[in-house]
Amino acid sequence: MSGGWPGFDEDLMARQGPPAGPVSRSAHPAARYDFGVAYPDPDSLPLEQLVECLREELQRAGRSLAHYPHPLGYPPLREWLAARLAATRGFSVDADDILLGSGSNEPNFLVAQALIDPGDVVLAEEFTYAGTLGFLRRFGADVRAVQCDTDGMLPDSLEYQVQAAVDEGRRPKAVYTIPTFQNPLGFVASLPRRAEVTEISARYGVPVWEDDCYVDLNFDHPDLPPAIRSLDDSGRTIYVASFSKNIAPGMRLGYVTAAPALMDRICAIKGTGGVSQFTAMAVHRFAQTGLDAHIEQARNRLRAKRDALQAALATHLGDRACWTQPLGGLFLFVQMLDGTDTVAAAERAASRGVRFAPGTHTAADGVSGRDRMRLCYGWNRPDEMAAAIAELAAALQPELAAVTG
Amino acid sequence: MSGGWPGFDEDLMARQGPPAGPVSRSAHPAARYDFGVAYPDPDSLPLEQLVECLREELQRAGRSLAHYPHPLGYPPLREWLAARLAATRGFSVDADDILLGSGSNEPNFLVAQALIDPGDVVLAEEFTYAGTLGFLRRFGADVRAVQCDTDGMLPDSLEYQVQAAVDEGRRPKAVYTIPTFQNPLGFVASLPRRAEVTEISARYGVPVWEDDCYVDLNFDHPDLPPAIRSLDDSGRTIYVASFSKNIAPGMRLGYVTAAPALMDRICAIKGTGGVSQFTAMAVHRFAQTGLDAHIEQARNRLRAKRDALQAALATHLGDRACWTQPLGGLFLFVQMLDGTDTVAAAERAASRGVRFAPGTHTAADGVSGRDRMRLCYGWNRPDEMAAAIAELAAALQPELAAVTG
Repeated sequence: MSGGWPGFDEDLMARQGPPAGPVSRSAHPAARYDFGVAYPDPDSLPLEQLVECLREELQRAGRSLAHYPHPLGYPPLREWLAARLAATRGFSVDADDILLGSGSNEPNFLVAQALIDPGDVVLAEEFTYAGTLGFLRRFGADVRAVQCDTDGMLPDSLEYQVQAAVDEGRRPKAVYTIPTFQNPLGFVASLPRRAEVTEISARYGVPVWEDDCYVDLNFDHPDLPPAIRSLDDSGRTIYVASFSKNIAPGMRLGYVTAAPALMDRICAIKGTGGVSQFTAMAVHRFAQTGLDAHIEQARNRLRAKRDALQAALATHLGDRACWTQPLGGLFLFVQMLDGTDTVAAAERAASRGVRFAPGTHTAADGVSGRDRMRLCYGWNRPDEMAAAIAELAAALQPELAAVTG
Repeated sequence: MSGGWPGFDEDLMARQGPPAGPVSRSAHPAARYDFGVAYPDPDSLPLEQLVECLREELQRAGRSLAHYPHPLGYPPLREWLAARLAATRGFSVDADDILLGSGSNEPNFLVAQALIDPGDVVLAEEFTYAGTLGFLRRFGADVRAVQCDTDGMLPDSLEYQVQAAVDEGRRPKAVYTIPTFQNPLGFVASLPRRAEVTEISARYGVPVWEDDCYVDLNFDHPDLPPAIRSLDDSGRTIYVASFSKNIAPGMRLGYVTAAPALMDRICAIKGTGGVSQFTAMAVHRFAQTGLDAHIEQARNRLRAKRDALQAALATHLGDRACWTQPLGGLFLFVQMLDGTDTVAAAERAASRGVRFAPGTHTAADGVSGRDRMRLCYGWNRPDEMAAAIAELAAALQPELAAVTG
């Protein structure tokens, strides 16, 4: 699959260590029904607003385009983020403790590069974001899975994995977690669960690397807990998030904040001259003006898409599978109950115009999840879901024939 | 000086290998008269045009913002670049042979990362762009200087350095050159000189790494030669350029094209998800519409600034120094003839509100050029040049007193 998915940084996941062969540089293949990548709804991009916001910000501060950007990124946007994080995620940082990057991918890449030496142990949710898994493997990490339930990482499993690594003389370098609308499992880790994770992290001195990039996509959760970062007084927690999911991936704008020593190291190894000021200026103004209304609209659209997808699954996969019931975010995780091999099915689905990620693509151990599928519901329209899942079910059908004889 | 210059990627030059200490993350210090960094004229940024161009492109193609960008970068812009290079620099590449990056810095960084193992020999003009020098050193290159005259690299010196390295069993990995409006020396390498460099490169199998990012800033040269790339049939030449100098550094948009094997390697190691689509879309439309008129205006402004700077130097430094007579580009290189130490003078100049790069900052060997200064004339207004150089001359004065007793 990696050959056809160059828009998919997650392809790096498929390669343990530096790639041996050429990377496909061909364009993203058109998939009629794309459940594969976390695109937002293309019809609801706030394009005209972004243009107006760019104009307004340029009028105010356009001369700064003549400068090379501040190495941490456009200061007004970092100031906005600092205030936003304090107001919504429960922790305070200075604007100068924040580094802007290209989406959340670049910050995650830099954290991986800064933290990991080959052989270092990193813990992650048993199914997680393949892009970061790819970066971890690229830097030679030994990624170990933490079991989860619908409330998040299981503390016993986390502690077990930490202790096991410590017993080997290899205290984990970090615990990578997506506690809010986890990709792909969809859970929101509860506040008590976050506190337990924080406690284990503190007790063993293993930093939490918190990826919060779906936090704004809340359409049904009544009361999101604060960030894990807010529960940690030590400053050890690494916090990464992005505007890719609440505005658009094409903006390539995300951020990271962590302890000064790690931030210094990240800044030192960062090889580029800072994110596009042009983009950061538009995003800053949009953040101040239209972002929240846009998020509200996006949430309503996503709720409708999730509902339509769940209805379509019930209709076409019925009792062959079960699936998560996410209260926000972009992902629904399906588990086949009839022995269907989703890796094999993915090829057949692609020929039917349906794209999705098999569970193996998201597995911390690289191999689990042949019975699972990650479906991103951000792209397809609600009225397309039924047809899309009908095609998917048909693609899964040969497996059913094989199993039932 | 590195502490105060975080906007200056070139600070990496000051560190041989990975930095040992914290990197300053403080904001760019205000310098009343800034000859330090290659900013364009802040009053001539095409801000309103960029906004309109963004709007037009979004109307045409805005839905693509919902996608993660093509890993090579926005295809229409690469198609435009392929046509532009064929029309103006004399060589043909496919759009898919081009990778967009964050300014020219990111492409140069990736080329360095892809090519260089610690200890590898890389040849460069005796004074050159400090940003790339920093990347070369960071990856452990052994950078060796090639002597130049006003016509570019001296072929005898180039061949000497190549042969010397070969005799050590260490054929150079590349020759890094800025043949058009060289930073800081200002020369435009003639066509015969480019052909000689190409011949030596071919004969020894040492690729030319051509950085052409000042090529559009031609205000007085009657007939720019084609790119070195155009003289090389082997495809060995690496070609990097950027929109930082013809639009604005804040856009962070540049590109590289090289042989397929090197492009594949660069794409494989590139850790981020592609340049901001948002920016690339605006730049694409602007390239199709207003870019050439903007370049024409910029050229006229730069000519006036260069003229004013040269007049101010004649007035205030007179026979204490000599300086280059660039026909384009952004830089003028001053050589003090009275023993003035420009590294020491830089501190005094900073306290007088004047910022510049001592020659040592640009030296391939890291130490030459204590008698030289690089003055970038892009930022200060023509009517400021006299006052600026008066301050500079005064800052240089204590040295004169020290020398003449």
